[in-house]
Amino acid sequence: MQRSEEEHKARMRKRQAAQQRIVASRTAEKGLLIVHTGKGKGKTTAALGMVVRAIGHGQKVGVIQFVKGAMATGEKAVFDAFPELVEFKPMGEGFTWDTQDRARDIATTRAAWEEVKRMIADPAYAMVVADELNIVLRYDYLPLDEVLDVLAARPAMKHVIVTGRNAPDALLDMADLVTEMTQLKHPFRDQGVRAQAGIEF
Amino acid sequence: MQRSEEEHKARMRKRQAAQQRIVASRTAEKGLLIVHTGKGKGKTTAALGMVVRAIGHGQKVGVIQFVKGAMATGEKAVFDAFPELVEFKPMGEGFTWDTQDRARDIATTRAAWEEVKRMIADPAYAMVVADELNIVLRYDYLPLDEVLDVLAARPAMKHVIVTGRNAPDALLDMADLVTEMTQLKHPFRDQGVRAQAGIEF
Repeated sequence: MQRSEEEHKARMRKRQAAQQRIVASRTAEKGLLIVHTGKGKGKTTAALGMVVRAIGHGQKVGVIQFVKGAMATGEKAVFDAFPELVEFKPMGEGFTWDTQDRARDIATTRAAWEEVKRMIADPAYAMVVADELNIVLRYDYLPLDEVLDVLAARPAMKHVIVTGRNAPDALLDMADLVTEMTQLKHPFRDQGVRAQAGIEF
Repeated sequence: MQRSEEEHKARMRKRQAAQQRIVASRTAEKGLLIVHTGKGKGKTTAALGMVVRAIGHGQKVGVIQFVKGAMATGEKAVFDAFPELVEFKPMGEGFTWDTQDRARDIATTRAAWEEVKRMIADPAYAMVVADELNIVLRYDYLPLDEVLDVLAARPAMKHVIVTGRNAPDALLDMADLVTEMTQLKHPFRDQGVRAQAGIEF
């Protein structure tokens, strides 16, 4: 049944008022700890979208990739257009099944984490992305307690985004915003489609 | 129990071989119909990240926003740096509870959809984002059958990304890749934190 114009208007007016009350009640500003986890796609991509928003507002962002270091990425070309605003460091050496060297992976992870710590401590950065940090935590390449301590002690207005499947429960507990990406359908698995430029990298 | 270096190496070598077999079996290339749905955050943001990837590869992208037109967005400043590659059209007039005018919402939606159709038909665009299309479908501002027909008949290599909660089942059935964003924790609701530049807009 089609609603009349007047009914629609009254319903929407009510909803607008409710929305305005809710927005008015939200006054706090704080640096957020954001986690993107789950087995679905979009964890890194959504972080990348937040980086774009931040630099669009003139905020400086640091992006540290813990895993995908060797991959050539489309986003790099875009970040390069904003050299003062984005510091993008692909520090991982590829997937851990490619390096096959645990000691080297731990050293690589440590170097990447030191960069994240530096950016969190440096007031110049409004946002820090620790891409695929959950993966190296899962492999115990970095002590979880140390990571949690640094995140908990971050400056009040610093946004930190952590991505990767299998986020540790303690990290989820500490986070302000957690989104789980669930894969309902995937062309790789279902149709034998390969990774394509603009979509996967 | 810590694994020995040799055990780690053997395990990773096995995993690498499996990974290589999988990648080798995926040879198809096609334009993907991608849907980001669910109540969580990151649907638009992940689409935005894909736009960045695509333009980083020199692909032309069209972005039509069906709902958030009036909102000033950080991404616009970034897109403006790539005027030949991104055509960004915020065509919605705001949330439907703000306009309170169903006939106007339908006309606005129609104009936005015509733009999406034009971009899908035009070979110049490698990727088209129909942001929050699911929302206007939910309100019946556009006939679902017409939308499905256009998407089904799209050129073979055209990527189309549709975002918004409550994606219709028929759209999910047709899609190549569906990611559901689930909100596990949200600072707006839980802590009264307001929308902040670089995060929400």
